[in-house]
Amino acid sequence: MSSSEFFSKIDPITYEGPESRNPLAYRYYDKDQMVMGKRMEDWLRPAVCYWHTFCWDGFDVFGGGTFNRPWHKLSGQEMAEAKLDVAFDFFTKLGTPYFCFHDIDIMAPAATIKEHTKNFAAILDKVEEKMGETGVKLLWGTANVFSHPRFMAGASTNPDPEVFAFAATQIRQAMDATKRLNGENYVMWGGREGYDTILNTDLGREMDQLGRMVSLAVDYKHKIGLTGPILIEPKPHEPTKHQYDRDTATVYGFLKRYGLENDVKVNIETNHATLAGNSMEHEVATAFALGIFGSIDANRGDPQNGWDTDQFWMENMEITKTMYHIVKNGGFETGGFNFDSKVRRQSIDAEDLFYGHISGLDALARGLLCAVDILEDGRMPDFVTERYAGWDGEFGQWLLKQGSLDEIADRAVKEGLDPKPKSGRQEYMEGLLNQFV
Amino acid sequence: MSSSEFFSKIDPITYEGPESRNPLAYRYYDKDQMVMGKRMEDWLRPAVCYWHTFCWDGFDVFGGGTFNRPWHKLSGQEMAEAKLDVAFDFFTKLGTPYFCFHDIDIMAPAATIKEHTKNFAAILDKVEEKMGETGVKLLWGTANVFSHPRFMAGASTNPDPEVFAFAATQIRQAMDATKRLNGENYVMWGGREGYDTILNTDLGREMDQLGRMVSLAVDYKHKIGLTGPILIEPKPHEPTKHQYDRDTATVYGFLKRYGLENDVKVNIETNHATLAGNSMEHEVATAFALGIFGSIDANRGDPQNGWDTDQFWMENMEITKTMYHIVKNGGFETGGFNFDSKVRRQSIDAEDLFYGHISGLDALARGLLCAVDILEDGRMPDFVTERYAGWDGEFGQWLLKQGSLDEIADRAVKEGLDPKPKSGRQEYMEGLLNQFV
Amino acid sequence: MSSSEFFSKIDPITYEGPESRNPLAYRYYDKDQMVMGKRMEDWLRPAVCYWHTFCWDGFDVFGGGTFNRPWHKLSGQEMAEAKLDVAFDFFTKLGTPYFCFHDIDIMAPAATIKEHTKNFAAILDKVEEKMGETGVKLLWGTANVFSHPRFMAGASTNPDPEVFAFAATQIRQAMDATKRLNGENYVMWGGREGYDTILNTDLGREMDQLGRMVSLAVDYKHKIGLTGPILIEPKPHEPTKHQYDRDTATVYGFLKRYGLENDVKVNIETNHATLAGNSMEHEVATAFALGIFGSIDANRGDPQNGWDTDQFWMENMEITKTMYHIVKNGGFETGGFNFDSKVRRQSIDAEDLFYGHISGLDALARGLLCAVDILEDGRMPDFVTERYAGWDGEFGQWLLKQGSLDEIADRAVKEGLDPKPKSGRQEYMEGLLNQFV
Amino acid sequence: MSSSEFFSKIDPITYEGPESRNPLAYRYYDKDQMVMGKRMEDWLRPAVCYWHTFCWDGFDVFGGGTFNRPWHKLSGQEMAEAKLDVAFDFFTKLGTPYFCFHDIDIMAPAATIKEHTKNFAAILDKVEEKMGETGVKLLWGTANVFSHPRFMAGASTNPDPEVFAFAATQIRQAMDATKRLNGENYVMWGGREGYDTILNTDLGREMDQLGRMVSLAVDYKHKIGLTGPILIEPKPHEPTKHQYDRDTATVYGFLKRYGLENDVKVNIETNHATLAGNSMEHEVATAFALGIFGSIDANRGDPQNGWDTDQFWMENMEITKTMYHIVKNGGFETGGFNFDSKVRRQSIDAEDLFYGHISGLDALARGLLCAVDILEDGRMPDFVTERYAGWDGEFGQWLLKQGSLDEIADRAVKEGLDPKPKSGRQEYMEGLLNQFV
Repeated sequence: MSSSEFFSKIDPITYEGPESRNPLAYRYYDKDQMVMGKRMEDWLRPAVCYWHTFCWDGFDVFGGGTFNRPWHKLSGQEMAEAKLDVAFDFFTKLGTPYFCFHDIDIMAPAATIKEHTKNFAAILDKVEEKMGETGVKLLWGTANVFSHPRFMAGASTNPDPEVFAFAATQIRQAMDATKRLNGENYVMWGGREGYDTILNTDLGREMDQLGRMVSLAVDYKHKIGLTGPILIEPKPHEPTKHQYDRDTATVYGFLKRYGLENDVKVNIETNHATLAGNSMEHEVATAFALGIFGSIDANRGDPQNGWDTDQFWMENMEITKTMYHIVKNGGFETGGFNFDSKVRRQSIDAEDLFYGHISGLDALARGLLCAVDILEDGRMPDFVTERYAGWDGEFGQWLLKQGSLDEIADRAVKEGLDPKPKSGRQEYMEGLLNQFV
Repeated sequence: MSSSEFFSKIDPITYEGPESRNPLAYRYYDKDQMVMGKRMEDWLRPAVCYWHTFCWDGFDVFGGGTFNRPWHKLSGQEMAEAKLDVAFDFFTKLGTPYFCFHDIDIMAPAATIKEHTKNFAAILDKVEEKMGETGVKLLWGTANVFSHPRFMAGASTNPDPEVFAFAATQIRQAMDATKRLNGENYVMWGGREGYDTILNTDLGREMDQLGRMVSLAVDYKHKIGLTGPILIEPKPHEPTKHQYDRDTATVYGFLKRYGLENDVKVNIETNHATLAGNSMEHEVATAFALGIFGSIDANRGDPQNGWDTDQFWMENMEITKTMYHIVKNGGFETGGFNFDSKVRRQSIDAEDLFYGHISGLDALARGLLCAVDILEDGRMPDFVTERYAGWDGEFGQWLLKQGSLDEIADRAVKEGLDPKPKSGRQEYMEGLLNQFV
Repeated sequence: MSSSEFFSKIDPITYEGPESRNPLAYRYYDKDQMVMGKRMEDWLRPAVCYWHTFCWDGFDVFGGGTFNRPWHKLSGQEMAEAKLDVAFDFFTKLGTPYFCFHDIDIMAPAATIKEHTKNFAAILDKVEEKMGETGVKLLWGTANVFSHPRFMAGASTNPDPEVFAFAATQIRQAMDATKRLNGENYVMWGGREGYDTILNTDLGREMDQLGRMVSLAVDYKHKIGLTGPILIEPKPHEPTKHQYDRDTATVYGFLKRYGLENDVKVNIETNHATLAGNSMEHEVATAFALGIFGSIDANRGDPQNGWDTDQFWMENMEITKTMYHIVKNGGFETGGFNFDSKVRRQSIDAEDLFYGHISGLDALARGLLCAVDILEDGRMPDFVTERYAGWDGEFGQWLLKQGSLDEIADRAVKEGLDPKPKSGRQEYMEGLLNQFV
Repeated sequence: MSSSEFFSKIDPITYEGPESRNPLAYRYYDKDQMVMGKRMEDWLRPAVCYWHTFCWDGFDVFGGGTFNRPWHKLSGQEMAEAKLDVAFDFFTKLGTPYFCFHDIDIMAPAATIKEHTKNFAAILDKVEEKMGETGVKLLWGTANVFSHPRFMAGASTNPDPEVFAFAATQIRQAMDATKRLNGENYVMWGGREGYDTILNTDLGREMDQLGRMVSLAVDYKHKIGLTGPILIEPKPHEPTKHQYDRDTATVYGFLKRYGLENDVKVNIETNHATLAGNSMEHEVATAFALGIFGSIDANRGDPQNGWDTDQFWMENMEITKTMYHIVKNGGFETGGFNFDSKVRRQSIDAEDLFYGHISGLDALARGLLCAVDILEDGRMPDFVTERYAGWDGEFGQWLLKQGSLDEIADRAVKEGLDPKPKSGRQEYMEGLLNQFV
């Protein structure tokens, strides 16, 4: 079978409604449906990722590739173009508006920096052409500065400054490409920006190097007029023992340290959130509270497994809780839901790629509808507002803005303050949530 | 048996050297031994904690107290004074220079804010007297604003501003007491400054409330001339589902957000570090790199158990790796090693309190000696320095300080940069470490 | 407020259907609704637990009780009777058919073995009377042989044989009580049947002691004609560092070792399953596969917290996946769903106890309906059946029952076997599941 | 550089004693040193593993191979023979007596079952020759029935019986090879004997299939006169979501279920133990208690990372605690310490392979010496013996062998038993341990 025939048996996916039993149709994702005044597609801004879906061959640490994709048998530019064709065939049949890529995902493999430059440029014309033909847009671009052996000890954080310069070169070119393709964000995941052992590591130097690289990228973004934000993607570890961009709160501290908090936001990945010991809704709520919410890599881990499984995210309750914070805060600005998910190594058929993305997108759509229901119902947000109402009163405002510690204490003792506990109503709230999911 | 007889069978603990088989003697801790120009005691600055050692009766969630201490059968001021006697008897027999306490650890229980004020004041005279008699000093003081039911939904972060005011009162009084007793630091652990469910929580408001409380404390510290820093003690969760002060990097971001990074440092607890998914040496190295290293609560968790077990820390390798960063950075300024450790619920005898503290302090002393050996040997730190040497050269400095992203990329392509991987030598470094521990 | 008034404002809970917005009504639990030929109540067999709901005062390791229940202010037999009244008031208003208790939950506290015997006997008459009046039944009884300090080093597995004998006494009396009250099972949770440190433990001896105690209970069960099974409740740790009854598969090995597999089954707790690193559906499916499925303690842990949080279980997807195995295997025989759940420490009101139980029971009812839908739809079970169909053919049966290793190998080589991978369809199955939950 | 030159700069490793600073010498491993009447080599029986050390090229899920070994550039039989030469060169320079391999580690890759048979046979002559020349022995052989795509859904537990037959063929041939090469054990690790999702899995069938395969292997072992045991290697998950051979206790239940407990033992891997939520010393102590201790795969995981990192094990305390149980129980019978460890992906030099193995073996030797010291000192084992002494007395024996539950209870009540808690002395024991490590 040739690459062009790979999805030939699959018709474009359409919306058939919740009662449909057709696994190749949407049951919830109805892109033009208006939800709180905005099209569903505009709320979700879904993107397919290039790497898991078109580059990975199904290998894992314990065994070789299982997928047997026709384009994996080709090489060089021919492989790159065949992959591009099949990718855009997939995007259009699936009906998703965006895609995302790393530089090396889309190009012919390169051995040298000059070859990298040449091969990357060579495919960009084709990508632009495909985007023009199909209307598929770029949610974000990025550079893979972690897979090649030269990055084994990090890219920005490498002990060898030449590696930093090599990475800078890829990042510059990927930023240029993102600009050219009207990408709406630029992502930096520090896959090996961490350490394998602290014994051989100068942690302070490495953090400064990372700060320098992000600063360079921010300056360059302004220079070339890339309007969207730079997004850092937090992860606590894997492949490293420890990654500096641990989670949203850690990234916030890093940004403040290097004065980058106005130009950089976070791209939160569900599976990274849970590996870091946080719930996904925590990460999203925190990013909004800190003013650095950017985009989402939608996937899930396995609650019993301690590595990045990147499964399709279909847990309605988790999704609803996350979506609640997104909708309450007005939705994405430039970000979206990138399916940073891979079908399982046993899911070897072309159909499996559709089953994963369709069910994943349906789950997001359903979560969106549930979250909107909760907000429109009002009982849940109102409970929270009322719970803190005291802080909006005279005493609360005085505490927050005027009283000094001793003035507060003197007043408290004088008035004999004796605050009475009020129920936090957790079970009530959980039951209420269950009326909507 | 009365409280005063509790330790009557135990003689003061002395140093007998590594070959001693006496479990009631030090084998490594020789307080006046000079180590790199400083007395061992001045490196370690060990402190006994009041709460685990004198307040806890051995209860856990699944069963009642096992310890049967005589002073637990008393009440009110009488109980407080009996406990104080036995505590100082312990400190002096153990020969440790410092102790630490929460307000409610040392005082008669109080039902109202006025009673709290009165009972706390009542014991302070006695404490001051004991300190004068024995020469035992206060490493740090703190207020317990998490145990009383009024704090069930947080202290600073409570939805009810009256609870904030109550907590502020305790904090003000505990800061006053710390000043009066010449305490060298003031600690804030946000035991319930987090949430049980995000469903009923306004995370942004709560973080601002917490920022306000720490700001109030910083201002008050300056007002009363408390010279040491305020120390925040990170923990990721427990008793809450999520605590805002997750780990050192998170606290750093919090401090930067509220402009507190010059007045506040961290008190790192080993067991909290590992619950947060970080190694202890990581937390310490990070705190030094970020300029917020303050003090340590020495204990350990169980690698197979997911809660705060607060066991005595006796793992020589972990301690050595942690101590290495402390010694390399010059040691504590105002902090020290507080034994925030509790003997197991089955360790019911008076001797067990000594066994735990003696073995714990010996382990710290031994780790100090090992770390000093590593630094004096030089192979380990030198390997790290050489590994990054390229960054001190012209190219490294140009990358860090001058080149823009496009200049760097242009130069890299022009020169055809092709950096070659160099071994990270992890096994060599681990083997080297094993020559010293 | 007196105990008898505690629930006076709450009317009996009734079924109002999925559209109800009344938090004090059932939306799914309609006990007499016929589901696959059986009443919903008979599928679920729900039970309220005495300990969390009526004994716990809201304390945790970091703070005191918050609940302020009127009966907690009483003592002795008066306390026991007030608690009994309020408990049965709760059971009847909730409309659940069963309850569960530990001996010490229901009785006046006792200091000696004779007093234990007397106080336990004293309350049993009252319990029997209440059960007669209300029709509420006993799902299972058990003895608490872990809370009293005498059990700090285990009950059966204690180094002191007198402690074993004390525990045996409680177990014998609790079994007698269970028999008298027509309890349908007898449960043994080995709360401290494990170790805090292996350094002081003879693991082989302790396992033999535990085997002995369960054997004694099995013999006694037959002697007194207790017809239901003995149920062991697995848990991996907490309060111990390691508990011998780690999970279902471990218990199975233990039962086989001591020849107990025909008389003993497992009582699987959701939160214990996940603490042990297993999913709940895994534990249930494993128990059915091994022939030792008994009963369920319904609750949940927090995926980010490493201790037993015992929250009400309301995750529809997890419940559905678990229920699927239960329904497919014909449901409970003598077991049921015991709500081994506690309202949060902040949920201090009488209503909160209802919110938790109502939403928890609704979640089980909804999961039951979803599971039944999946089974009646047939696509999911049929996919699994077809996937293994080859094993029912001649070759599969020959492999399983006849061929020796060399015969199989010879045949495989001779026939040049070259099996082709078939898609495992995980995403399809997950999407299918989402059509029902 | 050719393969034969790969280790040419490294001289044979010799023992130089604890004070040596030579990283290419042993400091503790002195193979002929007599320890409790047995040569150190005979206690440790160390083996080098073929897969990590000679087959893995340094790839991980996030990036390609870094090692650049000369033999990886060859192919077919030529590659296999070059690898064999370099492997035996390593074994002899390191001076370790044993090695271990999977079939596919040593042979030319094969596409079909006939080719597999041919290529495996082709290398065995060479292996036998090398063993004869060098005196290096085979600790155990095994078959890799998890890496090839045909095993993606398991080997024995595959839904397709043809895959079972293919795996059986490899196992038969690997057992034949093990017999021919005088291998002392035969290992089965069920790398994919588990499931990725329970939704598509018939767990009961799969466990029976696995039971069948192990039974076939046991029968075949007797048929060909392989005298050593079959060893099952437990692991909880990875690459699967759940592996049936979870841990030692689980394997024990499995063996009892299929009547295999007399012919099969466990090969315990340190990193698998900790992934399963058990300490290594727990697994070893449990295996001895259950009578199924076989062999050890020595390595370690990272306490903060949730996957199999397979690092060299150098933690003296953990090793000592494990070794204590081994020595106390008389040491290995047929098993040994296989270094199932890999140098880090950044450790790319030939020397790094030596640093890892030398430091790893030294750590085992040191742990052995520490454990022997503890046993010879006697305080630690004696404390445990005395702690349980009551069970050896009349009352203890009566409880264990005679009394029925009601007789025990009657006697306890009559005698008014009131057992008093005794200290478990955990801190004392931990401090004592620290006198030896």
